[in-house]
Amino acid sequence: MSAPVAVPRLSINRWTCRTTPLQDLLEACVAEGIGGIGLWRQDVAEIGLDALRRRVDDAGLAVTSLCRGGFFTAADPTDRAAALEDNRRAIDEAVGLGTDVLVLVVGGLTREDKDLVAARERVVENITALAPHAEQAGVRLAIEPMHPIFAADRGVVSTTAQALDIAEAVGSAAVGAIVDTYHVWWDPQLAASVARAGESGRLMGYQVCDWNLPLAAETLHSRGYMGDGFVDFPAVTRLVAGAGYTGPIEVEIFNEDVWATPVDDAVRIVRERFEQLVLPSA
Amino acid sequence: MSAPVAVPRLSINRWTCRTTPLQDLLEACVAEGIGGIGLWRQDVAEIGLDALRRRVDDAGLAVTSLCRGGFFTAADPTDRAAALEDNRRAIDEAVGLGTDVLVLVVGGLTREDKDLVAARERVVENITALAPHAEQAGVRLAIEPMHPIFAADRGVVSTTAQALDIAEAVGSAAVGAIVDTYHVWWDPQLAASVARAGESGRLMGYQVCDWNLPLAAETLHSRGYMGDGFVDFPAVTRLVAGAGYTGPIEVEIFNEDVWATPVDDAVRIVRERFEQLVLPSA
Repeated sequence: MSAPVAVPRLSINRWTCRTTPLQDLLEACVAEGIGGIGLWRQDVAEIGLDALRRRVDDAGLAVTSLCRGGFFTAADPTDRAAALEDNRRAIDEAVGLGTDVLVLVVGGLTREDKDLVAARERVVENITALAPHAEQAGVRLAIEPMHPIFAADRGVVSTTAQALDIAEAVGSAAVGAIVDTYHVWWDPQLAASVARAGESGRLMGYQVCDWNLPLAAETLHSRGYMGDGFVDFPAVTRLVAGAGYTGPIEVEIFNEDVWATPVDDAVRIVRERFEQLVLPSA
Repeated sequence: MSAPVAVPRLSINRWTCRTTPLQDLLEACVAEGIGGIGLWRQDVAEIGLDALRRRVDDAGLAVTSLCRGGFFTAADPTDRAAALEDNRRAIDEAVGLGTDVLVLVVGGLTREDKDLVAARERVVENITALAPHAEQAGVRLAIEPMHPIFAADRGVVSTTAQALDIAEAVGSAAVGAIVDTYHVWWDPQLAASVARAGESGRLMGYQVCDWNLPLAAETLHSRGYMGDGFVDFPAVTRLVAGAGYTGPIEVEIFNEDVWATPVDDAVRIVRERFEQLVLPSA
């Protein structure tokens, strides 16, 4: 069997094959020429930081990001302090894994407190409190704008422009945005916002998957292989490339059908779709 | 039994009680002091324009809007011409019903054509073609920004700012936006956009319902009674009032549970929630 041809830029997010043992996923990546992996804090908790780092190193993969910090919207001071402490640990874990990108999902509302403006202000305050630790650690905080379908329960930052506004309000070069096609493909201001992210040095990552319809019963699991839904990948990828982004591109799919697919097949499909729909425009 | 106290500003959208015979809904509105109703073209098709107008007049209600024109995104010239012709009929129906507001749901993408930018350009072109007929008829075209959850299959206009950009590109005073809490509550630019709509004379309606979670299996049916979900009604209503809007406020709920509720109960809950959460800030 010949050695696989390395696929430029491609990284696979751990959650794309979350039900697969890590070692099997790493081997499937190596077999397909995939050189990067985005990890989750659950992996750290399960395997341990050092052992996790060693396994990924041994496979020859780079860790392209750590998911995730955030959940900054609690109004209660005790909850707020706990969130900040947990985020500092997440920064340290990113260092330990050899990645300089920590993805932030900022958190949502509660039925008891529907004040969206105040929740968004708390996000700014908490990222401001966190930024010095990130700067010292050499880790970048990549705010992930979430699709407005998740504004109530998961992420009150809904657009790339809003993420950049927060980064500028914080005033740290360590804070920026990650562009995830699932969350931002619909944004009428996407072209301008991605360009602005590039110009300001705050474009910290690019994640891809498709917007599938009908939505899954668990809407978070409606992410699909590129090409299965409605996202115009060449168009969005051209925006990201035009903004000067040359970093890894993570395929991050949450999908029950993908999780039920043998890992070798899933990783092969990821590579094929990436080569067809993303890489030519990257 | 004493006569009901009229509830200022409140209108009920026909679809809130779509499974109820129209006459029963009209009588329930009269009993609760509700003075307006938003109708659908399906009502016109079912009852006939003149008979429909007579029934609503006899009940003493005002028609506050007609839903809906739009579906402008087809690329095929024959489909495009048919859509324009159908929209001209919709304008005429609005006139026949005595309302000057036609709500536009602009249409989505297809799996064969995912070019979002081009679809949005066709929306501008088609509303430009439609505007003269609306001006002559004295009907305002109220573009309804749709929640991005519907960008793929129903409405490629996702924000109030985008609707206003389109109205300005068309260049007709007969084109503007309608604010529907379900669709726009999450928008980080909502305050600025609603103010802009008011300043430019393009704030053409206000519809309310809540963003319920979990989403219904048919996501379109996740609209809830005000107070059941995550929308901050006083906050959004203050924005609309601050923009100078003094027109009717339509309660438009699509919800299987509401449709299964006896109409008198549903209309009473609508009135109560409106009086609690919307009217004090309107």
